Amino acid sequence: MKDVEALVADLRQFVAERDWQQFHDPKNLTMLLASEVGELVAEYRWVAGDAADAHSRDAASRARIADEIGDVGIALLLLCDRTGIDLGEAIAAKLAKNRGRYPVETARGKAERPV
Amino acid sequence: MKDVEALVADLRQFVAERDWQQFHDPKNLTMLLASEVGELVAEYRWVAGDAADAHSRDAASRARIADEIGDVGIALLLLCDRTGIDLGEAIAAKLAKNRGRYPVETARGKAERPV
Amino acid sequence: MKDVEALVADLRQFVAERDWQQFHDPKNLTMLLASEVGELVAEYRWVAGDAADAHSRDAASRARIADEIGDVGIALLLLCDRTGIDLGEAIAAKLAKNRGRYPVETARGKAERPV
Amino acid sequence: MKDVEALVADLRQFVAERDWQQFHDPKNLTMLLASEVGELVAEYRWVAGDAADAHSRDAASRARIADEIGDVGIALLLLCDRTGIDLGEAIAAKLAKNRGRYPVETARGKAERPV
Repeated sequence: MKDVEALVADLRQFVAERDWQQFHDPKNLTMLLASEVGELVAEYRWVAGDAADAHSRDAASRARIADEIGDVGIALLLLCDRTGIDLGEAIAAKLAKNRGRYPVETARGKAERPV
Repeated sequence: MKDVEALVADLRQFVAERDWQQFHDPKNLTMLLASEVGELVAEYRWVAGDAADAHSRDAASRARIADEIGDVGIALLLLCDRTGIDLGEAIAAKLAKNRGRYPVETARGKAERPV
Repeated sequence: MKDVEALVADLRQFVAERDWQQFHDPKNLTMLLASEVGELVAEYRWVAGDAADAHSRDAASRARIADEIGDVGIALLLLCDRTGIDLGEAIAAKLAKNRGRYPVETARGKAERPV
Repeated sequence: MKDVEALVADLRQFVAERDWQQFHDPKNLTMLLASEVGELVAEYRWVAGDAADAHSRDAASRARIADEIGDVGIALLLLCDRTGIDLGEAIAAKLAKNRGRYPVETARGKAERPV
């Protein structure tokens, strides 16, 4: 994957050039994230679960999905940059916590509350 | 930020150990993403916009926010891994598209539809 | 269904008794709605589409789903009450618009973009 | 508000005419709801909290907001109709529960976790 710091630097420049920092408080950025995730969800809402992988490979829908994933990623990086929360550390910390919450022996193969 | 490929490798192992790939079709993963983003939104829903940065710095709320950001990041990486869509490329491609959609001269300082 | 006006009156009293109107601007209420919908989505995220009806009938999951639907309904009524937008009129107007956007002859049986 | 049962009857006819019941399992309908709520959130994401009431009154934005509220209402009614969960009862039951969870004396004026 591309270097995350380089992406964040590009995003900062994009935002600064348009003087959009004023709109990007963390509250608003979570709303941006929610609205972009809504668009991503829309791509799969009428697709059956067992057709969702094929839908993700089809050229036309894949392009739209990648586009929405790009939007979601942008919103998430903007939020992390604004709050100073390191995304990689947050993921690693949560994964460690989930290892404790979902021990292999009890969680194996159960959909109840998997991550 | 931590190496994304290493995080993805850790996530794969976590999922495989629990035999959870069966639940992780792309449709379900967008639902995971939406529900985790909902929890992140909940952290800011009663905070005023001009207090949202301070809320993000406060130790107790920051820990919860980082926790939710971790969940969102995990869901997003799982979705990208399952679909084979490169998150960094998707972000870079969307940013390039947004440069065209929002020219500096017309978008500057306008909240109308900023990213 | 119970009288909507009576429900709204009960909600108003509940909010006023707690002095929560101060938090209930329309922006915050859309965030409440998004977070509650996230919890509802979580109820179905690991359930296969063809098992979703049975999941909705099962006593334990049905109680949780009804609980989340209650939260979503409360958030939506609070938003309509705050903005003065009549929910029934909004639904009827959108349905009329959708009849035009999705003519029976072309939309029939197609998942492309059904409501 | 318009009679809810009449709205539901109109929705049923609209869906049946297009043979869309096949797409409307409860899982898919929660995804429809999430994507429509995402569009509603987008209407407020760059609006300051203290400008959100005025934004809801402005003719142009009000029309868009009412349109999105219509979509959200349609998705919610479709989900309730499909699952047989009575929306009014679900709201009333949750409100009763919330009265217990948030006693007036301790919840008054506190944003901590208001509904």
